[in-house]
Amino acid sequence: MTDIDHALGQISRGADELIKREELEARLRLGRPLRIKAGFDPTAPDLHLGHVVLLTKMRQFQDLGHEVVFLIGDFTGMIGDPTGKNATRKPLSREEVEANARTYAEQVFRVLDPGRTEIRFNSEWFGAMGAADLVRLAARHTVARMLERDDFARRYAAQQPIAIHEFLYPLVQGYDSVALRCDVELGGTDQKFNLLMGRALQQEHGQAPQIVLTMPLLEGIDGVQKMSKSLGNYIGVAEPAIDIVNKTMQVSDTLMWRWYELLSLERTAADIASMRAEVDAGALHPRDAKLALARELAARFHGAAEAEHAATQWTALVREQRADVDLPLQELGVTAEGMRLAPLFVAAGLAGSNSELARKLKERAVRIDGEVVEDRERVFAAGGEHLLQIGKRSFARVRLVPA
Amino acid sequence: MTDIDHALGQISRGADELIKREELEARLRLGRPLRIKAGFDPTAPDLHLGHVVLLTKMRQFQDLGHEVVFLIGDFTGMIGDPTGKNATRKPLSREEVEANARTYAEQVFRVLDPGRTEIRFNSEWFGAMGAADLVRLAARHTVARMLERDDFARRYAAQQPIAIHEFLYPLVQGYDSVALRCDVELGGTDQKFNLLMGRALQQEHGQAPQIVLTMPLLEGIDGVQKMSKSLGNYIGVAEPAIDIVNKTMQVSDTLMWRWYELLSLERTAADIASMRAEVDAGALHPRDAKLALARELAARFHGAAEAEHAATQWTALVREQRADVDLPLQELGVTAEGMRLAPLFVAAGLAGSNSELARKLKERAVRIDGEVVEDRERVFAAGGEHLLQIGKRSFARVRLVPA
Repeated sequence: MTDIDHALGQISRGADELIKREELEARLRLGRPLRIKAGFDPTAPDLHLGHVVLLTKMRQFQDLGHEVVFLIGDFTGMIGDPTGKNATRKPLSREEVEANARTYAEQVFRVLDPGRTEIRFNSEWFGAMGAADLVRLAARHTVARMLERDDFARRYAAQQPIAIHEFLYPLVQGYDSVALRCDVELGGTDQKFNLLMGRALQQEHGQAPQIVLTMPLLEGIDGVQKMSKSLGNYIGVAEPAIDIVNKTMQVSDTLMWRWYELLSLERTAADIASMRAEVDAGALHPRDAKLALARELAARFHGAAEAEHAATQWTALVREQRADVDLPLQELGVTAEGMRLAPLFVAAGLAGSNSELARKLKERAVRIDGEVVEDRERVFAAGGEHLLQIGKRSFARVRLVPA
Repeated sequence: MTDIDHALGQISRGADELIKREELEARLRLGRPLRIKAGFDPTAPDLHLGHVVLLTKMRQFQDLGHEVVFLIGDFTGMIGDPTGKNATRKPLSREEVEANARTYAEQVFRVLDPGRTEIRFNSEWFGAMGAADLVRLAARHTVARMLERDDFARRYAAQQPIAIHEFLYPLVQGYDSVALRCDVELGGTDQKFNLLMGRALQQEHGQAPQIVLTMPLLEGIDGVQKMSKSLGNYIGVAEPAIDIVNKTMQVSDTLMWRWYELLSLERTAADIASMRAEVDAGALHPRDAKLALARELAARFHGAAEAEHAATQWTALVREQRADVDLPLQELGVTAEGMRLAPLFVAAGLAGSNSELARKLKERAVRIDGEVVEDRERVFAAGGEHLLQIGKRSFARVRLVPA
């Protein structure tokens, strides 16, 4: 296998689409470090494993000798949602952007190699850009083409409003690639349209078009929906090591292999294939394969010692069914009326919804302080402290405090 | 009749739509001079009577004590057509904009009162505007709303490309009204969408929304299509007095009244009504009514003496069928092969098309040097000088020179 073949294998591992493979191959043959860009939203610096898929791919590029641009889209972040309709998109100040960038840096350098990473802000070039330049940028692209983007097409068909500035944002993102002279841009599959816009704009500006590499969206621990904060099926990179281990262990034996492919830096594709063969042959217990993954992920964000400790804790908790192991204690606020069973489990992060808990209750899989719950109408008052459990692997320790 | 009633009568004379009459009335009651805006394209400073409809309305406002802003849209003019597809929209330089503005000024002050006119350029505010401000401007309006504009709707339905910057231009025009704090904006009926955009943007910026007054598009001398340079049915304000008179006299007896309503500053609505009654009663020959209009229009651009001379010339030419009156001599370039009949009449401005000339030939209405044309295959060589004539009123003197 040549170096180029090896690089192509690493880069395309787990990827959804590579546009275009032959262009990437030619670019790799140039023998110089390539510039790899991935854009991040300046409003949400709390990363979860969904983001780590991209970071992992960026790190793989770095390990092949390439340079990564971690681009923070602060130009649009500082504009926010000018309609004021979306309260979560209020304009960020320069100070907030910088604070968020520091938070990002703390998190991403657990994955990325700082020596091969540039952190950049697109306000560098867009802040100096005049209205006329933006008009010129907009002139090269058509309304019809923009309405082909999946989400625009859907909203237009459903007669949901699309503000005109939303048509400018893919152009802004595309122009970032021109300003940075990127060789490759990475993004989720939902970013494909915008990444291709970068290709088009680079060509219009006389640059070789960037190679586009889309990564699949990581399924959450439920194995059904994509990992997202709002769905509660995520693992945050800032979570304690025990939670990273505990939650990773909830992933199904099938989904585990996809997580390995998309998140592991320690195991090569060949390592993963042989581990999988061992599991299939019954020589390796899937739980042990999963614990190795959980340990790798915990180690990435908390170091090897803490990861090891968390793995030991998890084994003690689950395999030995001991409820006294030191789990982090969550404080939950309750009103004077107290809190009912389902909201308690949802608030503790053990159930996604009331109906999910109802199902688990029916399966007699819900325990409080080690006892199967019989009284579904039980109300919990402030002052109590409990060990909550669903099934064999999901635990939470909570203290109820007055809201 | 109160002053307000008088003003409302003058303002609404000939107008297509007034949005909203009660707002205008309230604004007039403030007793201060109102700011009246009309926008002009910086690329085309050659005005014809179609533009004079707006200028006449602006002058009527001035005569009522109001102030007029003659706005030159140089911001977009200096951008041109960034796709480069439209060669006629190449970006204008600052020098070209200023030269065009001087040409405009020479022409418009034949109609407008310089003491109550501000000439402004929208690059004053848009030149200083950043890309972020333009994004904010775009954010308040939706794609769906923009696609309601007649021409966009038509082009989108016909799958003709609409460039994204075209969606920004109505916002630019609307924002001009914010920057200028206009009370009233005037425009052709085809401008209604953009004028209403000004109302919306002013409200968003905490200003009272401007009153919108649309004027109908003037029919050309053919009485069929709107006056336009490309259709050849226009009267340019820079044309010699004799041409203004001669072409005005070609307008039909019916269309004449509309021209009076839209173009006359000397005759009030009441004057026009009584003149029309005289014509209907047979007390006034329509030709004489029309000649009075022709004289007024020629006088506006060339002074009373020249207009009087041109009217006398016209009378001599047409009523006395004399072909020796001094018409301006046009030089037309011909190649060595010479020029055929139809192109000659089209080049001289007497026929709109070859097929129009063929019809006139059939009617035996085409004369050269006083003789009805029998030989339709005749070819004209360089060196010749001829008096061309169609019907009783259309004349041109041409000299053929080597191309």
